[in-house]
Amino acid sequence: MRMVDLIEKKRDGKELSENEIKWVIDRYTANEVPDYQMSAFLMATFFTDMTDKEITAMTLAMAHSGEVIDLSSIAGVKVDKHSTGGVGDTTTLILAPLVASVGVPVAKMSGRGLGYTGGTLDKLEAIPGFKIELSEDEFIQLVNENQVAVIGQSGNLAPADKKLYALRDVTATVNSIPLIASSIMSKKIAAGADAIVLDVTTGDGAFMKNLEDARRLAKTMVRIGALANRQTMAVISDMSQPLGEAIGNSLEVVEAIETLQGEGPADLLEMCYVLGSQMVVLAKKADTLVAARQMLEESLTSGKALAKFKEMIQNQGGDVTVVDHPERLLSAAYQIPVFARQTGVVTKLVANELGIAAMMLGAGRKTKDEAIDHAVGLKLHKKIGEEVAVGETLLTIYSNTTEVAEVVALIEANIEIGDTSKEPPLIHEIITE
Amino acid sequence: MRMVDLIEKKRDGKELSENEIKWVIDRYTANEVPDYQMSAFLMATFFTDMTDKEITAMTLAMAHSGEVIDLSSIAGVKVDKHSTGGVGDTTTLILAPLVASVGVPVAKMSGRGLGYTGGTLDKLEAIPGFKIELSEDEFIQLVNENQVAVIGQSGNLAPADKKLYALRDVTATVNSIPLIASSIMSKKIAAGADAIVLDVTTGDGAFMKNLEDARRLAKTMVRIGALANRQTMAVISDMSQPLGEAIGNSLEVVEAIETLQGEGPADLLEMCYVLGSQMVVLAKKADTLVAARQMLEESLTSGKALAKFKEMIQNQGGDVTVVDHPERLLSAAYQIPVFARQTGVVTKLVANELGIAAMMLGAGRKTKDEAIDHAVGLKLHKKIGEEVAVGETLLTIYSNTTEVAEVVALIEANIEIGDTSKEPPLIHEIITE
Repeated sequence: MRMVDLIEKKRDGKELSENEIKWVIDRYTANEVPDYQMSAFLMATFFTDMTDKEITAMTLAMAHSGEVIDLSSIAGVKVDKHSTGGVGDTTTLILAPLVASVGVPVAKMSGRGLGYTGGTLDKLEAIPGFKIELSEDEFIQLVNENQVAVIGQSGNLAPADKKLYALRDVTATVNSIPLIASSIMSKKIAAGADAIVLDVTTGDGAFMKNLEDARRLAKTMVRIGALANRQTMAVISDMSQPLGEAIGNSLEVVEAIETLQGEGPADLLEMCYVLGSQMVVLAKKADTLVAARQMLEESLTSGKALAKFKEMIQNQGGDVTVVDHPERLLSAAYQIPVFARQTGVVTKLVANELGIAAMMLGAGRKTKDEAIDHAVGLKLHKKIGEEVAVGETLLTIYSNTTEVAEVVALIEANIEIGDTSKEPPLIHEIITE
Repeated sequence: MRMVDLIEKKRDGKELSENEIKWVIDRYTANEVPDYQMSAFLMATFFTDMTDKEITAMTLAMAHSGEVIDLSSIAGVKVDKHSTGGVGDTTTLILAPLVASVGVPVAKMSGRGLGYTGGTLDKLEAIPGFKIELSEDEFIQLVNENQVAVIGQSGNLAPADKKLYALRDVTATVNSIPLIASSIMSKKIAAGADAIVLDVTTGDGAFMKNLEDARRLAKTMVRIGALANRQTMAVISDMSQPLGEAIGNSLEVVEAIETLQGEGPADLLEMCYVLGSQMVVLAKKADTLVAARQMLEESLTSGKALAKFKEMIQNQGGDVTVVDHPERLLSAAYQIPVFARQTGVVTKLVANELGIAAMMLGAGRKTKDEAIDHAVGLKLHKKIGEEVAVGETLLTIYSNTTEVAEVVALIEANIEIGDTSKEPPLIHEIITE
């Protein structure tokens, strides 16, 4: 087999065999296929797409390019959840204890945030003492005993994906449905998932800017999940404005606690119920989404979910008292309000730009190795569709510096107040097959 | 400027500015843009094409990426000729003295052959003593004094093209009209051409397998020639069978001599008149193609063209006696006939496969550094449309070994004899603007 022939085949829109795809990924991972051939292959894929069979072969080859976590010693169906990226997306912090509290084993490997997208690990580390590094044995033991553990991703998970992603980033081949789908699914499979729930975000703050692309991506992943024997469901959710009200690590932990106490933002809670119901069904703990949701609502109302969150924090060495005293997490030196300049209705709240504003405060990192400040971020008081009077506080900046002129300018440029506005839908579609 | 943004721009089908194209080529030549970004750019170009403005900018940037030959001290319009590649294509050997004999300055830099396509330098070196390495000063002096000199290409001519070509070869991006056009035109401009005549071949033996692609390539090069202030004309010629009757270096020199003596194959002579007329018109030595052709016919008939060929050989140190005794060049140890296995009409004579047969005998090189055998090759006795009786000689193999079973098998597989056949057209179209 010669790489140039396979590039040509893809370029001409022909279907590559399973063996050919596996050869490409294996040789590339082994540095035997050079970057310059791989980037030509990726660009050809951008233009000619891939069949489901090809994407599935690529996903499995990438999943098996490094360590594959074996969760078979945990009883039950291991369901993983993945979001294609959002701003203020606190769902994992809530979902992990919530679904664990109804008997779904949650063995979750999470990543750090990059750019304006927050990472679950960073949020958990906002809890004093919380340990995200456990051995595989400790991890599995914790899940077996307490149904839930969230740890950092192993360094050798899907190395083909890491290598490919770095190449795609500099060759304008990121935005390709087969490449995005195989990247996401390969990591979930390598992390040991039996079944997968996907949150495909769409809108300004998301990777998929329009619904049509989001739908194609979601449907593709659900189909290839089935072909790879990992039952998969997807929710297409709106990310034209941030989810919930908090953006920033500690602020989002507080928001998660409030939500588990039944006092969180309605949109965030709803999102957790929708995604959680899918997880419960895929884990075979309920037959229907309706039944699953009822289980989750009962667990939350009864305090079982909150108790599970406490248990999770305690098991991983975190300071559990923050759950009853979340104010302890709010250590930013300054709380700076941003006021409405006119009376009206909020018509725009650009998610990615607000994410960037939070990143500028120190809540996120521009490059992989930057340190972050857990205390800083934004707390929204008004969301799209809400009325606001001139002078009223639109949001509060949590900062460790008073030099926030640039941040304020960015925020003000990305909030619009008009005459009328409709609240955007939270969820556009649910894709189950 | 960031390469990734320019890749994206090309990927999305937007027109790059002259500056942007120049930046890409300059940085790539300087090894500042890595191969993996360039190959993504090339593949994007394969799919989204380029505008004439972009191809022109690319051509000029590539032409100026290294040495640019200054022929301004030669009086008159310097016209260069380029063929996109053929088998048995002896035209340059004939055209150089032919057009020089009517006063067109011919300062020709030629290359060596690779694969089944012969190179003018290799053919000239079949003439004992012929020197293809001259200093630029000697070269210009010769053209000024005798109107004609043919030398080897400088090593630093259009290095961007060399680098790009090597990359295209391994990334399935060779077959792209804007990339082929800029590659050819950049080399001609770097070699000092004021005007350019192109022979765009089409058919089995050519790079452009069909007429439509050949037409697009020819029209593109004629247009960008004009945009780059190099008046350009093109002939689309047929390469479904070899041109003339000889394939192989010495054999083609003999054929060139015979043609200049008025005794060569009709198709080869016709091709020389057509291309030569364009050269004469572009050199402003005649106003019309018809007038130009008449000049060339007179020069050939009167023996002036042949005398110019002798002069050229003498000036470059070659043994001029071969012109009167061409049989001296035929030094192959064996002449092995291939016979017709049936009576009928020749219907097929696959040019590239016959070229490969000649290469296998030693007439061409598979890799850049291989030595070649000037004496070997093929001499066709029948061409498409000609009648042949069973047992009659179809062609003669000139070989230095009797182990030619494989060559014979390849030849026999690529000559077909049937009931009726039409001689293919020699020239499909002439493109002058």
